Amino acid sequence: MAQSTTRQFRPLPVPSVDVAGFWGDWQEAVCDETAAILLDRCVEARMLEQIDINVPSPGLVIPVVGWLGTTQMFWDSDLAKSIETIAYSLYRKPNPELEARADAIIDMYERLQEPDGYLGSFFIRIWPEERWTNLRDFHELYCAGHMIEAAVAYFQATGKRKFLDIMCRYADLIIEKFGRGPGQMRGYCGHEEIELALVRLARVTGEQKYMDLARYFVDERGQQPNYFIDEAKRGGWDPKGVQAHVFEYNQSHQPLRDQRKVVGHAVRAMYIYSGMADIATEYNDDSLTPALEALWNDLTQKQMYLTGGIGPAASNEGFTDYYDLPNESAYAETCASVGLVFWANRMLGRGPNRLYADTMEQALYNGAIAGLSRDGKTFFYENPLERAGKHHLWIWHRCPCCPPNIARLVASIGSYMYGVADHEIAVHLYGESTARVELSGGEVTLTQQTQYPWDGAIALTVAVAKPTTFALSLRIPAWAKGAAIAIDGQRLELDDITTDGYARMEREWHAGDSVRLDLPLVPRALRANPKVRQDAGRVAVMRGPLVYCLEGTDNAVGLNSILLGDGLGRSQTATIPNFNGAIAIDLPVLREVAEGWGDALYAEAAPTAEPDTARMVPYHLWDNREPGEMLVWLRADRQP
Amino acid sequence: MAQSTTRQFRPLPVPSVDVAGFWGDWQEAVCDETAAILLDRCVEARMLEQIDINVPSPGLVIPVVGWLGTTQMFWDSDLAKSIETIAYSLYRKPNPELEARADAIIDMYERLQEPDGYLGSFFIRIWPEERWTNLRDFHELYCAGHMIEAAVAYFQATGKRKFLDIMCRYADLIIEKFGRGPGQMRGYCGHEEIELALVRLARVTGEQKYMDLARYFVDERGQQPNYFIDEAKRGGWDPKGVQAHVFEYNQSHQPLRDQRKVVGHAVRAMYIYSGMADIATEYNDDSLTPALEALWNDLTQKQMYLTGGIGPAASNEGFTDYYDLPNESAYAETCASVGLVFWANRMLGRGPNRLYADTMEQALYNGAIAGLSRDGKTFFYENPLERAGKHHLWIWHRCPCCPPNIARLVASIGSYMYGVADHEIAVHLYGESTARVELSGGEVTLTQQTQYPWDGAIALTVAVAKPTTFALSLRIPAWAKGAAIAIDGQRLELDDITTDGYARMEREWHAGDSVRLDLPLVPRALRANPKVRQDAGRVAVMRGPLVYCLEGTDNAVGLNSILLGDGLGRSQTATIPNFNGAIAIDLPVLREVAEGWGDALYAEAAPTAEPDTARMVPYHLWDNREPGEMLVWLRADRQP
Repeated sequence: MAQSTTRQFRPLPVPSVDVAGFWGDWQEAVCDETAAILLDRCVEARMLEQIDINVPSPGLVIPVVGWLGTTQMFWDSDLAKSIETIAYSLYRKPNPELEARADAIIDMYERLQEPDGYLGSFFIRIWPEERWTNLRDFHELYCAGHMIEAAVAYFQATGKRKFLDIMCRYADLIIEKFGRGPGQMRGYCGHEEIELALVRLARVTGEQKYMDLARYFVDERGQQPNYFIDEAKRGGWDPKGVQAHVFEYNQSHQPLRDQRKVVGHAVRAMYIYSGMADIATEYNDDSLTPALEALWNDLTQKQMYLTGGIGPAASNEGFTDYYDLPNESAYAETCASVGLVFWANRMLGRGPNRLYADTMEQALYNGAIAGLSRDGKTFFYENPLERAGKHHLWIWHRCPCCPPNIARLVASIGSYMYGVADHEIAVHLYGESTARVELSGGEVTLTQQTQYPWDGAIALTVAVAKPTTFALSLRIPAWAKGAAIAIDGQRLELDDITTDGYARMEREWHAGDSVRLDLPLVPRALRANPKVRQDAGRVAVMRGPLVYCLEGTDNAVGLNSILLGDGLGRSQTATIPNFNGAIAIDLPVLREVAEGWGDALYAEAAPTAEPDTARMVPYHLWDNREPGEMLVWLRADRQP
Repeated sequence: MAQSTTRQFRPLPVPSVDVAGFWGDWQEAVCDETAAILLDRCVEARMLEQIDINVPSPGLVIPVVGWLGTTQMFWDSDLAKSIETIAYSLYRKPNPELEARADAIIDMYERLQEPDGYLGSFFIRIWPEERWTNLRDFHELYCAGHMIEAAVAYFQATGKRKFLDIMCRYADLIIEKFGRGPGQMRGYCGHEEIELALVRLARVTGEQKYMDLARYFVDERGQQPNYFIDEAKRGGWDPKGVQAHVFEYNQSHQPLRDQRKVVGHAVRAMYIYSGMADIATEYNDDSLTPALEALWNDLTQKQMYLTGGIGPAASNEGFTDYYDLPNESAYAETCASVGLVFWANRMLGRGPNRLYADTMEQALYNGAIAGLSRDGKTFFYENPLERAGKHHLWIWHRCPCCPPNIARLVASIGSYMYGVADHEIAVHLYGESTARVELSGGEVTLTQQTQYPWDGAIALTVAVAKPTTFALSLRIPAWAKGAAIAIDGQRLELDDITTDGYARMEREWHAGDSVRLDLPLVPRALRANPKVRQDAGRVAVMRGPLVYCLEGTDNAVGLNSILLGDGLGRSQTATIPNFNGAIAIDLPVLREVAEGWGDALYAEAAPTAEPDTARMVPYHLWDNREPGEMLVWLRADRQP
């Protein structure tokens, strides 16, 4: 690794954190349901036929009406993300049957791998003549990236090296193939992902060469002349022929260091920004910082839904214009919010800063986990902020990128909770958990006891074999007005110890030292910047990190007839039955009355409004009960 | 024709009405610009190559990026509607060059027509083997219908019979081919249109057989077993394979008399309902009335935009759910509003009723003419009620059905203004004009002097060769609170003489008799039924038949920051420069102030509002000046 004199924070390996409470419940669902469902669906989609050399190649299978599976150039990524999910689930909850199924797939990949290390199933079994011919569209390095991530996870969880070794061989081939040397391809993938994967591979193997390859991909992207133009000329296609494939679509329109505006396909953008942040951390490369910070502000100040959903348009699965955030037609792909969590987490690599961690939490608790049903069995691909009752959780999707993506995030969430430097532990996310941290001064076990996010009281306990000096940095979310902190009962003045939104406590810690943090969870009413025309005159409710919504099942038909005035101050919380302590908010509202309208579609009469009570529930739980209407942005009563 | 003892109202032939004033200006634009532009664009689209047997067949030409024209199975309809427009324009304004171009096309069709009368260019020149094989998708009878309408119009305007004779030969072949007799096809077109065209052909030729064929198509549609199932079986395709082609899409899911819900492709629906209404009128067929009335209410009470736009969804170019009327993504195709005008006009065939005429006027002045720029040079295909400034008038469209459809409507508008029965003239629409009407008692010339729709004062003068007894029925729009009427200065009590919203004055009329009608044009604020969730908390402004909108060019950026309270009562009218007396409404509003927001996308602060003045202009004139934002439904200030 590159040497550094500045702080470099890396996430904890997944097995170093035991998660309970809120995230523990979600992880249980992934262990008990999702992990196996992912594999089942992959099998139904005929993915194994594509990779198993012991069965005949299915050839090119085109999706049809009444879909029964197909071959696909990105199937390896879906299998990989499923294996990655299984890996994390095995660590939490041993499951010999599931582990055997994963091992069998890994064995198939071992048999499939070519002598030179190449391992893309579509370009071994279906289209060998097209190997490496279309980096822009064919997802080869993208698949390699996901397989690398899966191999790292499987090694960490099980100790088995086979998959990791397979992927090191493939990564070695990629090192040979790609670069600026003679005979090498000076290209990079149209769908970014391998960059962040190579960083993970380098961290787990200690091999600098993988880090350097990641850096090459980051450095090379968008250099002129653009690789994809030459590639198109060689292939005989129009480099601008397909709308979705202009260079902005995959962030190759400029060198990454020159980019200031978040554009194109949302997931691709999140993945490459994640890779950039990793490289900035690992190489202490400040030349990436201006781009990263500008892109961060561009996204979070102009292009992000309150839920942390991003990419409003289905047409490019990505970004449109500033402040264009339609609610009902929001694309806001689950994968994109997952990707935002990835990026935010990596922006913490240069040091804790709630600018990133608050948004990580916001995307995680809302836009991301809304993509998985609470029972772990069904999924959302799109995450609108308003629906008339036609949008329900999917069993599966033809482009099934989202289910394993949210599943692997949930199953590995412990890794996102903590950032660790030589002499410092930063707590980015709160939740019942135990973390084992190797610092330069020795091992520290940090325990959180909390009902967060339902309750804001968090008790942290330090366990050390001997008194150890290190800094413990706790995030104080920007929304947590009146937060309070105390060590062993002794209250600290937050302002004095807080930098970049983290309360930093550097001292010699002794076994049993305890820190008590209180984050007031007061429901608050948010407005959107008036430039967001779709939210004008509307108000959203958050409590802690959670965005709330109205659902038809709790309220009568016609959610847009509800007006929120000053009722939030008189709201009450209640427990939602059958959701492990999840908190609803019951609040006084006005409700416009439709009676007296008769049959007219348009009339001069103004509606009357009557007092009513509305129930709001966490957005991430919508559509987990009865299907029906849903609304995040309530109409605001301007003059209550 | 069938005999009748009840009132049967038929529209006046286009040459019987001279139009001036508001519609005269529009017709000038069509004569001077649109008529020639339509032909030019048809030529650019390579339509003539498809029909001209003196040039080689272009074969099947697929649309490509950087489109340079193509062959198409519906090109005949676009040429026909263009010729129909030219026909009406020639009547108003002789143009030998344009007439020669139309004659040349008619000559091409004469040469193209097969000995048996068949005349579908695509199935003569491109795909002869597919003739009549796919009535559902291939538009053959639809094209025939438009060509019949064009032939009727060209005959009426020029007196030339050639095109009419050509189309009678084709219609005779269709009579031979289609029906319930032995050896006949018991089918009908997937895209309705020929039904209403055959009625026009019967009326102009006096041939009952064409009327009977129209009746057959109306009677047969949706009968079981469904024709399209057998057709699909013969063709070897899945009758339900394509989503857009389920039977509701083309209104063949049930016999028409059983239908009560407006479904499917909006233009198709309007055309067949028009044909149904024509048949009801011509045959005094009351068995169609329950369906027609139920469908009318279904459309206008649950599925129509305030503009008379219909069909909110692009996916099926048609209807979705009740009360689903999204503003920004509204499809609301120009052709569909034109079709609604057609249908409404034909619902007046059994007698004047403002239930139909008010909506005819609403669709005409808003959703329909918004599709044509005021200078006659550019077009809208979709007619949203809100835009962020990305939606501009088209030069042309690949499926160019709308430009000639709105052009032919404008050019023939006189025909829609008057309904005539044996002893009665009904004035459905007001506007500066002179109509020559043949009644049983003799010819009557009726003159309207008015600045309508900018001013509500209408002076009608009767000219007769000798005193003549007939009824003159004037529509009193439902919105015209305080309307007043007087004959020769003598005020009448409206309530005493009004039936179904028409003031009926039956008397012996003498030359020079005058009627004065005053329709107060007071701006009014409309609300949508609370079930329309997209319009909740919003208000729209109408003045007379015109829907008004905000445009960015008159108001600062951010139209959704404008709140309308009680300002309408204090509004003032003003003339919009360069639009022939068109009236704007300047009204006091509140405007939310965005200052102080800084960079945050979401914040807890509520915006403040300041008094401001907003200018509203007629919706049909939007995008005729500077491009930019547009908004019909303003935010309502609930408690001003």
